[in-house]
Amino acid sequence: MNEKTTIYDIAKALNVTAATVSRALNNNPKISAATRKLVMETAAKMNYKQNKLALALKSGKSNNVGVVVPYIDRNFFSAIIRGIEEELYPLGYHVIICQTHEQESAEIDNINALLNAQVDGILMSVSKLSTQTSHFEHVLNKNVPLVFFDRKKDVKGVSTVTIDDYQAGYNATKHLIEQGCSKIAHLSGDWALEIYKNRYKGYKQALLDNGITFNKDYVIKTKSDIKAGHKSVEKLMTLETPPDAIFSSSDYVALGAIQQLKKMGVKIPDDFCVIGFSNEPFTKFMELSMSTVDQLPVEMGKMSAKVFLEQVKESNVKIEKKVVLAPNLKIRATSTKK
Amino acid sequence: MNEKTTIYDIAKALNVTAATVSRALNNNPKISAATRKLVMETAAKMNYKQNKLALALKSGKSNNVGVVVPYIDRNFFSAIIRGIEEELYPLGYHVIICQTHEQESAEIDNINALLNAQVDGILMSVSKLSTQTSHFEHVLNKNVPLVFFDRKKDVKGVSTVTIDDYQAGYNATKHLIEQGCSKIAHLSGDWALEIYKNRYKGYKQALLDNGITFNKDYVIKTKSDIKAGHKSVEKLMTLETPPDAIFSSSDYVALGAIQQLKKMGVKIPDDFCVIGFSNEPFTKFMELSMSTVDQLPVEMGKMSAKVFLEQVKESNVKIEKKVVLAPNLKIRATSTKK
Repeated sequence: MNEKTTIYDIAKALNVTAATVSRALNNNPKISAATRKLVMETAAKMNYKQNKLALALKSGKSNNVGVVVPYIDRNFFSAIIRGIEEELYPLGYHVIICQTHEQESAEIDNINALLNAQVDGILMSVSKLSTQTSHFEHVLNKNVPLVFFDRKKDVKGVSTVTIDDYQAGYNATKHLIEQGCSKIAHLSGDWALEIYKNRYKGYKQALLDNGITFNKDYVIKTKSDIKAGHKSVEKLMTLETPPDAIFSSSDYVALGAIQQLKKMGVKIPDDFCVIGFSNEPFTKFMELSMSTVDQLPVEMGKMSAKVFLEQVKESNVKIEKKVVLAPNLKIRATSTKK
Repeated sequence: MNEKTTIYDIAKALNVTAATVSRALNNNPKISAATRKLVMETAAKMNYKQNKLALALKSGKSNNVGVVVPYIDRNFFSAIIRGIEEELYPLGYHVIICQTHEQESAEIDNINALLNAQVDGILMSVSKLSTQTSHFEHVLNKNVPLVFFDRKKDVKGVSTVTIDDYQAGYNATKHLIEQGCSKIAHLSGDWALEIYKNRYKGYKQALLDNGITFNKDYVIKTKSDIKAGHKSVEKLMTLETPPDAIFSSSDYVALGAIQQLKKMGVKIPDDFCVIGFSNEPFTKFMELSMSTVDQLPVEMGKMSAKVFLEQVKESNVKIEKKVVLAPNLKIRATSTKK
């Protein structure tokens, strides 16, 4: 392996100037896509890797951006990544993705792996079991821009892009009240994550604003899976006064709830309304299409990318931006009484 | 920034030996998770990044493994990634993921980005629009192990993990015949990809083996989305002798087909049976649960990881392994006549 290939060697091989090679390697927009591709391929063939890495080390520019999410197989997160890529790919950035499976240790490992891969920035959604903030501060200490989307922690210097979860919870609950429901249960997630706390707060306020007494027996904190929906309904339906509606913070929990309600012979939506959260694709294809909250994930991804790009541009100025997007209630069959 | 931190500095700071630090940084199993975490965090705090990268350059070991897939939001691919992570994460590897959106240019860019990030191997599924093989050979030339899963190209030296798509197509078609269907259409993908060609071949052979004349008007090559399903059914149902069943190479196309058949008033499964391919989660939650072929993606991911690990262990020997897994037909409502 020849470890000494320089941009001059590549320039010679292609009969172009070293400046052209340098520009092509650094994704300078002055260079055509065809030339860039040719230079990249030749550089690769000539084993330019080491030098490019050295260059990345020197300039701190790899044109790789790291994205860390709890799961890639939730439509919400994959759609955010799509939005990020749509914004960054045309600018010559490559998006490399890691998943945490909600484990803090994996989150820390992933961040270290991305920093070792010399990423120019990290865009991420905090995992549920994450309690520390030192690994986030570690990113900032390296002058690598960090952006939180959807799930965030309060860390000074980190920009965030979220939706208004309070408003989402409020609107969903208000819609259930307008459908004639008055005993509305709420299946929530871990309140260590602000998103779940805020959806709960919105739910509670909508009840109060509409003269409905808040009943703490109607609020259950659960995991975000189908089984949690089964169990929660089992529990709720044995209450002295069972609820007549559920607003769930998760589509999967709502799906489980619907399955269990059906099993018990409860008629949806006539006797019981259900609203989920996230607008996962399966919600549209169910026997009864499920009402849910669309969090505009593609827009959230695009916005996160834009916030990152602003930080890259203004590398001398510390920007801390808080973007809050408006949620979109999707009213479907599971909450529409005839 | 202090660029001269060595493992000796870290050892001093933690009051351990340099060997312990080195082992911890290299994920040696002799070191406890707690010690490893402490060393990693201290190394990070002391800006050890550059040296670790230098080490990676020297040893060719980053403990990062790259995975390239067309889409992360297809359950099939995300489940494969889950399998890969389950196998590799306990061994100290981090999986970094890129998606191609079926574009060859993105495939080339992703591979270069992963090589620049010093990955120890690349596990990937080839994108539909990929025609060249030079970017794969480029990976091999760098002595980075390359494993294809599901979608492969014939490249010397690349191990592959696939399912028996021929058998899958054969079994699905045979099942439709056993349900009494005799005019079975097949919605296929691009035959440049072997998986689609093999499913088609299995379909055709099952017809022949059961005395059913093959009708080329019943075979349509389409994209893998819902709209393609709508259009294909529109076309098929205007034939002089419309089909009475569809075996689709894609769950999404099958979903579109079912939507269009319903719109036309065709009764499923009594008058028309449908089988999809991939066992996407939504297939279970539809009004009529959809029959489909389960490709055992988690097992496929685990097997791909195992093949990669064998190659890493035997770095002096070139191994080219071809693993073929057996598919699993999931018979559900859309193909079960009463």
